[in-house]
Amino acid sequence: MNPELLSSFQCFDGTQSVYRHRSIALHCHMRFAIYLPPMSGIERVPALFWLSGLTCTEQNFITKAGAQRAASALGLAIIAPDTSPRGPRVPDDEAYDFGCGASFYVDATQAPWSVNYRMYSYIVDELPRLITKYLPIDAARIGIAGHSMGGNGALTIALRNPTLFRTVSAFSPVSAPTQCEWGKKAFSGYLGNNEVEWKKYDAVELIADRAWRGPDILVDQGASDEFLHSQLKPELLQGAAERADVPLRLRVHAGYDHSYYFVSTFIDEHLEHHARHLGVGG
Amino acid sequence: MNPELLSSFQCFDGTQSVYRHRSIALHCHMRFAIYLPPMSGIERVPALFWLSGLTCTEQNFITKAGAQRAASALGLAIIAPDTSPRGPRVPDDEAYDFGCGASFYVDATQAPWSVNYRMYSYIVDELPRLITKYLPIDAARIGIAGHSMGGNGALTIALRNPTLFRTVSAFSPVSAPTQCEWGKKAFSGYLGNNEVEWKKYDAVELIADRAWRGPDILVDQGASDEFLHSQLKPELLQGAAERADVPLRLRVHAGYDHSYYFVSTFIDEHLEHHARHLGVGG
Repeated sequence: MNPELLSSFQCFDGTQSVYRHRSIALHCHMRFAIYLPPMSGIERVPALFWLSGLTCTEQNFITKAGAQRAASALGLAIIAPDTSPRGPRVPDDEAYDFGCGASFYVDATQAPWSVNYRMYSYIVDELPRLITKYLPIDAARIGIAGHSMGGNGALTIALRNPTLFRTVSAFSPVSAPTQCEWGKKAFSGYLGNNEVEWKKYDAVELIADRAWRGPDILVDQGASDEFLHSQLKPELLQGAAERADVPLRLRVHAGYDHSYYFVSTFIDEHLEHHARHLGVGG
Repeated sequence: MNPELLSSFQCFDGTQSVYRHRSIALHCHMRFAIYLPPMSGIERVPALFWLSGLTCTEQNFITKAGAQRAASALGLAIIAPDTSPRGPRVPDDEAYDFGCGASFYVDATQAPWSVNYRMYSYIVDELPRLITKYLPIDAARIGIAGHSMGGNGALTIALRNPTLFRTVSAFSPVSAPTQCEWGKKAFSGYLGNNEVEWKKYDAVELIADRAWRGPDILVDQGASDEFLHSQLKPELLQGAAERADVPLRLRVHAGYDHSYYFVSTFIDEHLEHHARHLGVGG
């Protein structure tokens, strides 16, 4: 079934659109945003999946990151899905860090979450199929990036699916959700107490377990990020990458915090990183 | 009295801040946003005032326009005030196009608006004084720009104050508020039926009356803007500029609408225009 176009704005000679579709994986209607560069009118273009952080929808990145300028110039599409299932029949929680807007990109195993909260499968299976079927995206040239909760989402999804997602980068990722409060709360709720399940969604565990043979993993982190020491812990990612001989390029930026003002400052360099390694124009 | 710093984010090595202060002109507390480029740590920098459109606050431009990158590189500050007085004692109206968020940047003469709705004086007198007193802004190098209602605000304010605002540009301005429904409604409410008062806030009338001896006036307009023919009428601006021999550079862009996706696409060129004529670095 065709995704339904909800809105479309011309932007840097490309189009910034939002679509809605019925998700089979999530049993609800989902929205995703897509920026298509001008080049997509002529040929299939490479794409970057962007996974947003806690409380976000498909709107945050496309409104605040200022990424369309570089995406247009590089000929790169950007797909920004919602951060969780939503809707009248989707279970939710009052907390900002659990339930709607806080999927942590896992396939939940615990009731009542397991029916809808299957964002891992949605990002890995359903959405790439949908997008390459209906939109001018080159399935062989897809990268993934994300912010905070979505940073861990991008890292774990790439580490487990390196032939689907050939490049990966992150801003301020929750590097080891099994070792911080946000992650422990979410994983307990969605996955119960099964440690094997937890490790499937933890970037530090996966880097140690599977390594990564793709191009450099680019991670940007603000040194003044209020969540740096409590939730994000990039030093754990760095340690795991060193032990597994994974090419992690972790950059810590003095003065920057956790906001989209930080993301907007460095997003162009991420897009250039993905474009270069996805062989844009090549 | 010092403006109170409400928030500050590092962005492109400068700072995106929001301040609050008690406005004497408006008899209420007001917020304004200011982006300070890195260069402002060393010397006073030129500044662009940005006047937003209907329903906006000081947040819209700083969140959506993606202007900080170019402002940082050019060494240009950007000051984005709120679009009207606000607060528990400020009269309002349920309509989106009158009252709070819809000041039209006039000095109201009619009750109950005349106490607070004095945005013209606020932008021309109070805010420039405040900003050059407390922040590292060069009073001799200030330009002004705006969008929609704020596009007319910028044009009229510059035309009436060409020594204070040395450069002016606009996106999708309401070119002749005395000749469109938005403007007629607002001017009737704020200014009564006094035609002389109306003409003081109409860009087409002022260009005809006073001309403009500054650098080119840059105006960008989307050809797919839903308000183009009903409210914006750039052809009236063009006609008046031609008759008054004013250097208006009106650019009409196919496919673009009235949104910030349009503004973000061309904002860099506006910043470059202002920077060049304000003598940035010179």
